[in-house]
Amino acid sequence: MNKRIAVLPGDGIGPEVVGEALALLDVVAELYGHTFHYDYGKIGGHAIDEEGTALPAETVELCGKSDAVLLGAVGGPKWDRGPTHLRPETGLLGLRKALSLYANLRPVKIFPALRDASTLKPEVLEGVDLLIVRELTGGLYFGTPRERRTGPTGLEVVDTLFYTEAEIERILRLGFELARTRRGHLTSVDKANVLESSRVWRETAERLAPEYPDVELTHLLVDNAAMQLVRNPRQFDVLVTENLFGDILSDEAAMISGSIGLLPSGSLGAEGTLGLYEPVHGSAPDIAGQNKANPLATYLSVAMMLRTSLGLPEEADAVERAVACVLEKGVRTGDLAQPGERVWGTREIGAEVRDQL
Amino acid sequence: MNKRIAVLPGDGIGPEVVGEALALLDVVAELYGHTFHYDYGKIGGHAIDEEGTALPAETVELCGKSDAVLLGAVGGPKWDRGPTHLRPETGLLGLRKALSLYANLRPVKIFPALRDASTLKPEVLEGVDLLIVRELTGGLYFGTPRERRTGPTGLEVVDTLFYTEAEIERILRLGFELARTRRGHLTSVDKANVLESSRVWRETAERLAPEYPDVELTHLLVDNAAMQLVRNPRQFDVLVTENLFGDILSDEAAMISGSIGLLPSGSLGAEGTLGLYEPVHGSAPDIAGQNKANPLATYLSVAMMLRTSLGLPEEADAVERAVACVLEKGVRTGDLAQPGERVWGTREIGAEVRDQL
Ligand SMILES: CC(C)[C@H](C(=O)O)[C@@H](O)C(=O)O
Ligand SMILES: CC(C)[C@H](C(=O)O)[C@@H](O)C(=O)O
Repeated sequence: MNKRIAVLPGDGIGPEVVGEALALLDVVAELYGHTFHYDYGKIGGHAIDEEGTALPAETVELCGKSDAVLLGAVGGPKWDRGPTHLRPETGLLGLRKALSLYANLRPVKIFPALRDASTLKPEVLEGVDLLIVRELTGGLYFGTPRERRTGPTGLEVVDTLFYTEAEIERILRLGFELARTRRGHLTSVDKANVLESSRVWRETAERLAPEYPDVELTHLLVDNAAMQLVRNPRQFDVLVTENLFGDILSDEAAMISGSIGLLPSGSLGAEGTLGLYEPVHGSAPDIAGQNKANPLATYLSVAMMLRTSLGLPEEADAVERAVACVLEKGVRTGDLAQPGERVWGTREIGAEVRDQL
Repeated sequence: MNKRIAVLPGDGIGPEVVGEALALLDVVAELYGHTFHYDYGKIGGHAIDEEGTALPAETVELCGKSDAVLLGAVGGPKWDRGPTHLRPETGLLGLRKALSLYANLRPVKIFPALRDASTLKPEVLEGVDLLIVRELTGGLYFGTPRERRTGPTGLEVVDTLFYTEAEIERILRLGFELARTRRGHLTSVDKANVLESSRVWRETAERLAPEYPDVELTHLLVDNAAMQLVRNPRQFDVLVTENLFGDILSDEAAMISGSIGLLPSGSLGAEGTLGLYEPVHGSAPDIAGQNKANPLATYLSVAMMLRTSLGLPEEADAVERAVACVLEKGVRTGDLAQPGERVWGTREIGAEVRDQL
């Protein structure tokens, strides 16, 4: 197969982990007889420095012409104080909107070899295998008005949580579909006791449920969901929720797993047109360029990309198996190593996983 | 001293735990020579059943004439499907607004005797002692418009996150003041990389900081805060945040402690006029009326009330000491007992704590 992949290394450790991911993809290409074309684009802080914008028009164009997008990470203290339009994350938000990436998928799975890395007790983590489906182009992230005003008491400020029923239905349907391919349980998270948007969310879920008789639907309030993830994460299969709740809960769930350096993420476009894949961990500017970054989350993001956007499930399985094997063998980066264990560098882990493949 | 306390038992286990709390207050009154007057009011589901509203006007009036309010809990499956104005939580939200209870204080402290009750590893919990200060009368909870509309694609829905700078400043100041009486560290939680309201929040915190040179101010994004509470809760002293973030994070933090049955909460009125105190655990309708409820969180809420609204710090200390002693002695309700341990009933624990006092 011949595939075009848009590659956006971004900031901090982004270029390092993406570099390793491409080296891995080269091995996959060779082993399975594919050709992967890489088109590089700029985004985030380094795009601000070089192009004066966090999301150059060419980047969007290039992604639009690709079969999938692989992103490293964006952001760093250097750009933290800039005005909104000159912030790295503005590039990421813009790309989500420009490519209509409406669904963010964040699987959280515990690798047995790493059960001790979490602050949760190992017995609580045993068997955890959940998927958070987060709406990504609506809600408080994009609603208007979002502005400062002058009111009777002085300065006032407003953000708007906006959804169309169609947007809510689209993401809920994806949740039902994904639950169907897994253990058949969907937890819809909302704040229906306070928000009108959550009431529409809940009603829509109820309306769709009869179309998915093989899926068991449960509603959970977001505050309770934040508790249940700590109390008993094993109870969950698929969770589906709106943008900001998903932002908070998926990061909480990631930390619970104890191995945020291992978590992949995929964002899907409308009608399954395009997917963007990135590790969950972010740009970690403090360790950038030091051969310390953990490339495994990016490998697992590549596996998601191979399976979901490139239609190569066998290749995806092979990558995931290689990562699991390497972990079983005790290979660890600094973020996962226990005191006294040997710490591996980014490049050494990369070589090890490629060998394994 | 002569004090008037408005007592709102509410639903589920509310009446049981409040009953025990009043029995305890009677002992405090006797020991220290005070007179506490109890005025009973209705709120929540049982007010809906009897008065047709979750918040009868007499309840608000009675609270307004009191020195403090003691609430059990509201809610239950019986009222879950009703229209918004006939929901128990509408009563609670209405009371917060009517009494201008702008600040919710949720301390999370680990009792050494209960370190094993959490799903987090004991060494992670060691020494945790944090306080979440949640803004309680603004944000998405009360902003308008909150409504359904018809748009180009059909149904649309809107909620509004609204704050005045004055509201933001008021709660931040309380955060600084409280940090000052503790370990001098304030973490302000926002989503300044996305929300305009969070940007005003952060700027306001920065503007106030020079007035509190003895307090160290840190900003944290809400998604990161949800992670850090799991990764290392000990790093926090006081956290201050807006209404919905506070709702989510305070419940997450409560579950991390492993003993939600022990956590008190206090909501303060503007200019320190009035305080409402309630246990964090909620109405637990499944165990209501079975002598299974854990009254300890209500006792600790009473201690907060004695200290903060009634100006009786010595009495508050005595109540807290009595609770700690009883826990040290191994007294446990079902929610805290480990397999094989003896489980105590609500009334038996009550008697034990009163004896201890
Ligand atoms: C960088 C930020 C705008 C972004 C978000 O809130 O969506 C990040 O937290 C994420 O989850 O991808
Ligand atoms: C019942 C509900 C409206 C309420 C809230 O969200 O404030 C509750 O979760 C709380 O934290 O007291």
